[in-house]
Amino acid sequence: MRIAIAGAGAMGSRFGLMLQQGGNEVLLIDGWAEHVQQIQEHGLRANYNGKEVVAHLPILLQSEVGESDQVDLIILFTKAMQLEKMLKDIQSLIKEDTEVLCLLNGIGHEDIIEKFVPMENIYIGNTMWTAGLEGPGQVKLFGDGSVELQNLGAGKEAAAKELARKLAESGLNAKFSDNIRYSIYRKACVNGTMNGLCTILDVNMAGLGKTTTAHKMVETIVNEFAKVAAFENIHLDIPEVIAHCESCFDPATIGMHYPSMYQDLIKNHRLTEIDYINGAISRKGRKYGIVTPYCDFLTELVHAKEDSLNVK
Amino acid sequence: MRIAIAGAGAMGSRFGLMLQQGGNEVLLIDGWAEHVQQIQEHGLRANYNGKEVVAHLPILLQSEVGESDQVDLIILFTKAMQLEKMLKDIQSLIKEDTEVLCLLNGIGHEDIIEKFVPMENIYIGNTMWTAGLEGPGQVKLFGDGSVELQNLGAGKEAAAKELARKLAESGLNAKFSDNIRYSIYRKACVNGTMNGLCTILDVNMAGLGKTTTAHKMVETIVNEFAKVAAFENIHLDIPEVIAHCESCFDPATIGMHYPSMYQDLIKNHRLTEIDYINGAISRKGRKYGIVTPYCDFLTELVHAKEDSLNVK
Repeated sequence: MRIAIAGAGAMGSRFGLMLQQGGNEVLLIDGWAEHVQQIQEHGLRANYNGKEVVAHLPILLQSEVGESDQVDLIILFTKAMQLEKMLKDIQSLIKEDTEVLCLLNGIGHEDIIEKFVPMENIYIGNTMWTAGLEGPGQVKLFGDGSVELQNLGAGKEAAAKELARKLAESGLNAKFSDNIRYSIYRKACVNGTMNGLCTILDVNMAGLGKTTTAHKMVETIVNEFAKVAAFENIHLDIPEVIAHCESCFDPATIGMHYPSMYQDLIKNHRLTEIDYINGAISRKGRKYGIVTPYCDFLTELVHAKEDSLNVK
Repeated sequence: MRIAIAGAGAMGSRFGLMLQQGGNEVLLIDGWAEHVQQIQEHGLRANYNGKEVVAHLPILLQSEVGESDQVDLIILFTKAMQLEKMLKDIQSLIKEDTEVLCLLNGIGHEDIIEKFVPMENIYIGNTMWTAGLEGPGQVKLFGDGSVELQNLGAGKEAAAKELARKLAESGLNAKFSDNIRYSIYRKACVNGTMNGLCTILDVNMAGLGKTTTAHKMVETIVNEFAKVAAFENIHLDIPEVIAHCESCFDPATIGMHYPSMYQDLIKNHRLTEIDYINGAISRKGRKYGIVTPYCDFLTELVHAKEDSLNVK
């Protein structure tokens, strides 16, 4: 299969590497010139479960994508706010039957993707793989993971299963899901609590968990997500989802980590994905007539923090 | 008049100094041993509108107050969370006709005061004087101010006017108000927006004002205060109050300052008064059946910040 990874940061690099090792023809695409140049000149350098590997993967700047690069599958791995620009830049890659798999964090990306790709070719998914970017051209890939995916097009279940099978051939542990939106909402609850709260309070997840008010805040935010999801006929098991979010507090597992939004904004002074997490719940809430004040306020606070750090 | 100032920090010291200069017999009372000792040994040292003065004011630790110290008037100037302990410690000062004037920031302190003093002897007020504590025994007193006050007891208007007149004799620019709760709510809106938001976002008031979401947050919080106030038959002029809050953003006036809660928590690692500002609105809201989610969330965030800084 000829596969383009649109957004070749840490996670995109992991998928590209594994899919190439699995016998596919992989093209990485990214917008970060220094990262692209490093991989073009030296290959992708990865610490892969403790072993140093160099993978010679073709990579293009997204502005330099041409028609000759058309592919069978595009896996989307950009930051949420870069998605539309990426899709514009890589339009020439898309054939009539190119399948597009969206694995971005957050909610509602299909609204953007369907401007570029017919719904019957869109698949959405969720991954539990992890990856870290060490510097331009350099990634750290540890542990195991999995992928769940589902078709958005009617009657495309068989194609979705086939896509999962192909990804599984490269060791990605991919499975078809008949309820991917549930998984996406469940994961968005983790991001919608840990990301914004740790960013605003300047704490890691264990630090958040130690505060007297963390449970009340997590509970209220998850309830807002659940009300919006219920309007879309997705009925979250609220106590289970709250416990799932709060499992991040455990210092013995991932509690000592700062979530990605913290790293983006506080550490690296980059814009956050808040508009695609809590902000997406606020927008959906307004559309459905559901009040979501904690998501509204948290989105406003994170934007105020971006502004106060002069991040643009 | 024999007057006790209960809580002799910066503002209490100002009132004590001015009331003594106005011919009253003043007793300062405070809980900070080093501050008390400095004033006992060296007098209160004040930079009073640019002039260094030393005022020999009697001062007692609140734990050492005895019955012989009974007074005609107690002016309360503690931090909100220290109010009840102070009233317990100074109970022996209170005669049958001792008047108590509460000038604390925040809302709803009368619920605590009336455990110690009959309602007919309680007066509540609001002051626009400012004062800064430079160190133990040392204050900085600049500019002009005013006091508004009102009786809580039925039929005590004349006594409230007389009390204002006596304070005015010492230059405190005190006036009777027939709507003090309006002024207190209006001032609480300033504290309920500037204090919590600047503390959580780590910005001064001008910095808050420059963010794209400040107006929406101020507007939502003021509307919550207004709904709770309306239930108590106090009808805030919402656009005027919002404009009043946002006047703090002006860097040419007080915008470059960090509000008192920021100084307490972020600078000095002390507990905040959030439970008596936004937290008071949350409690009243629950009692009245009014939702106040921005006040709830901001109170929870400030407590989480206190916890994360290990402030107790």
